[in-house]
Amino acid sequence: MISLNEAAEFLKKSDHILILCHVFPDGDTLGSAAALCRGLQQTGRHAAVRCSDKIGPKYRYLFEGVAPETFEPEAVVAVDIADVSLFGEPLRALYGDRVDLCLDHHPSNSCYAKRCFVDPKAAATCEIIFRLLRLMEIPVDRQIAACLYTGITTDTGCFKYTNVTPFTYRIAADLVETGMDAPTINRKMFDTKSRAHVEMECRVWDTMEYFYSDRVAVIVITQRMIRETGAREDDLDGISALPRQVEGVLIGVTLREKPAGGYKISLRAQKPVNASEICAKFGGGGHAGAAGCTLAVSLEEAKEQILAGIGAYLNKHAAT
Amino acid sequence: MISLNEAAEFLKKSDHILILCHVFPDGDTLGSAAALCRGLQQTGRHAAVRCSDKIGPKYRYLFEGVAPETFEPEAVVAVDIADVSLFGEPLRALYGDRVDLCLDHHPSNSCYAKRCFVDPKAAATCEIIFRLLRLMEIPVDRQIAACLYTGITTDTGCFKYTNVTPFTYRIAADLVETGMDAPTINRKMFDTKSRAHVEMECRVWDTMEYFYSDRVAVIVITQRMIRETGAREDDLDGISALPRQVEGVLIGVTLREKPAGGYKISLRAQKPVNASEICAKFGGGGHAGAAGCTLAVSLEEAKEQILAGIGAYLNKHAAT
Repeated sequence: MISLNEAAEFLKKSDHILILCHVFPDGDTLGSAAALCRGLQQTGRHAAVRCSDKIGPKYRYLFEGVAPETFEPEAVVAVDIADVSLFGEPLRALYGDRVDLCLDHHPSNSCYAKRCFVDPKAAATCEIIFRLLRLMEIPVDRQIAACLYTGITTDTGCFKYTNVTPFTYRIAADLVETGMDAPTINRKMFDTKSRAHVEMECRVWDTMEYFYSDRVAVIVITQRMIRETGAREDDLDGISALPRQVEGVLIGVTLREKPAGGYKISLRAQKPVNASEICAKFGGGGHAGAAGCTLAVSLEEAKEQILAGIGAYLNKHAAT
Repeated sequence: MISLNEAAEFLKKSDHILILCHVFPDGDTLGSAAALCRGLQQTGRHAAVRCSDKIGPKYRYLFEGVAPETFEPEAVVAVDIADVSLFGEPLRALYGDRVDLCLDHHPSNSCYAKRCFVDPKAAATCEIIFRLLRLMEIPVDRQIAACLYTGITTDTGCFKYTNVTPFTYRIAADLVETGMDAPTINRKMFDTKSRAHVEMECRVWDTMEYFYSDRVAVIVITQRMIRETGAREDDLDGISALPRQVEGVLIGVTLREKPAGGYKISLRAQKPVNASEICAKFGGGGHAGAAGCTLAVSLEEAKEQILAGIGAYLNKHAAT
C-alpha cells in the first residue's frame, strides 16, 4: 500500500499511461478511467483507456472528445479492479503481471500491483480519482466532473446506499458546481428502461408469490421468458431487487433458471435478516443484504428448498 | 418579502408557535414542520404542527418523540404552502387570514402571510429551514437532520431533479454527518412499493402502446383497474412517470379515467419537447417536463385527440 500522495507523485513522473477497466464495465470503472485519462491528456501527457469488454452505448459520453491514442505503455494503471481475474482477456494476458499502479475502493482488493492505493471507505473509485486530481493540481473541468459524478452516482445507487459519506455529498457539490448536467446523467442511469426490461418486469410481477405472512416474496425468471422478451444480461439489471421492494417484505427471492438447467437463487433482505446466513446453508454466500446460491433441481424443488431454509431462519430468529 | 434574518428574529421573539402544513402533505412540508417544531421545542418554546389531512404512516417517524402540545397560537407559521387554497379545511377557515410567517420555495407563492420568505432557488423548503435554524443558533441534531433530509430527498427525487444545487449536496453532507440514517429514509421513500402499487404497475404495463416511431408511449388507468387493485391515491404515485422511462421515448402519456367519466391526461416529456405547449392546446398547462389536461370524451377519442396534438407538435418541431 502506498499513500495517495505517492500515487500522485508516480503519475506526475509518468507518460504514455495506459488505464485499465474491469470486465462488465460499470459507471465507476469507466468514469474513473475517463476522468483520469482526460486529466492526464490535459497536462500534455499521452494516456489511453482499455477494457477487455465492449463499452455499452449508455457510457459512451464519458469518452466523447477524448483523443484516441495508441502507444506502448510506460505505465499501466488499473482503476476499480479488485483482482487480476477481473481484467478479462486480452488485458489479463497482456498486463496482469505488470500493473504499476492500482487505485481502488474494494475492501477485497488483492493488491496485485506494484503500487496499490485502496480506500474501502470511498463510496466509489471516482472519489479517489477526484482527490488524486486535486493532489496533482489538475483542474476538474465540466467533462471530468461528469465522468466522476457518473462513477459516484452509479456506485451509490444515486446516493441511496449505505456507502455514501458526507464526503461523497461534498464531492458531488464541487462536481455540479462546474456546470455539468447531473440530472441528465441520473435519468440515463436510473430512469431509463429498455423495452425488453419493461417486458421482463411485467412478466416477473405476474410470477410473484408471497409466503410466511407476506414477509417473503418470490419471483421466477425462466429461460423461456428471457427468450421471448429477447432480454440480454443488462436488461435484467435490477429485476432481482423487485420483490424486496414490496411493502412489508423482509426477504425477496429471485429464482432464475440457468441455461443448462437448475436455478440461481438471489436473496435480498431487509435488516435484521442476514441473507448470506440463509444462502450459506446451500453452499452460497454474499452480504447480509444480498446473497445467492445455486440449486441444481427443478423449479418446484428449488422453491421448496429455499423456502424451507428461509422458514428455518425465520423460526430461529423469531424476533424478526 | 422579508429576509431570512428577519424571519429568524421574528421566531426568536415568538412563543406558542403553530406550524401549518399543506394538504396532501409530502416529505417537504412535513419535514420542514417537524424540524422547525423540534428546534423550537429544544429551545424551550411551545410549538406544534397541524395539517388538514391525516399524516400517512410513511411519514410518522418525523414526529416520533415530539411532545404533543395544544395551545392558543400566538404565532402561526406556514411551511411549504404556496397559497391559502392549499391549507385545506379546517386550517384555511381557522388560520387562512392570520398567518404571521410563511416560509416557502414555490415561485408561485402568493405572499398571503404578514411576513413572507420565499426562495425559489431552494430545492426544498427544508433547505430554508436548515438555514433558518443556523441563523437562530439552534443545533441540528440527528432527529432534526432526519426531518430536513426527508424534505430534501423527496423534493429532489433523491437528488435526481434539476432543482438540485451544490448547496443541496452540501446541506445533505452536514445532515448525514449528524449520524442520521439516510439510506433507510431513501429506501422507505423510493424503494418501497405497496402491493396495490405493484398490482397497478403490472396492469398498466399491459396497456402500454407505442406511437410515432416509438417516441411516444401511452398507458391507461381505468376506474375498473383502481377498483380491482384497491389502489388509493398514493398507490398511484409514480405511475405516470413509467411510459417516459422507456428507452427512446420522448413523450410519456397517461390517460386516467375520472370517476364521473372523461380522462385526465398527464404528459411527461424529455428535452427538447415542451409538454405544457401540447397540453395548452387542450386548455391544460404545467411545465416543460410535466403537464396535464382533461378531455371529457371516451377513451378512444381521448387517445385520438391527444395523439393528434402530439403529432402536430412533433411535425412542427421536426428537429426533435
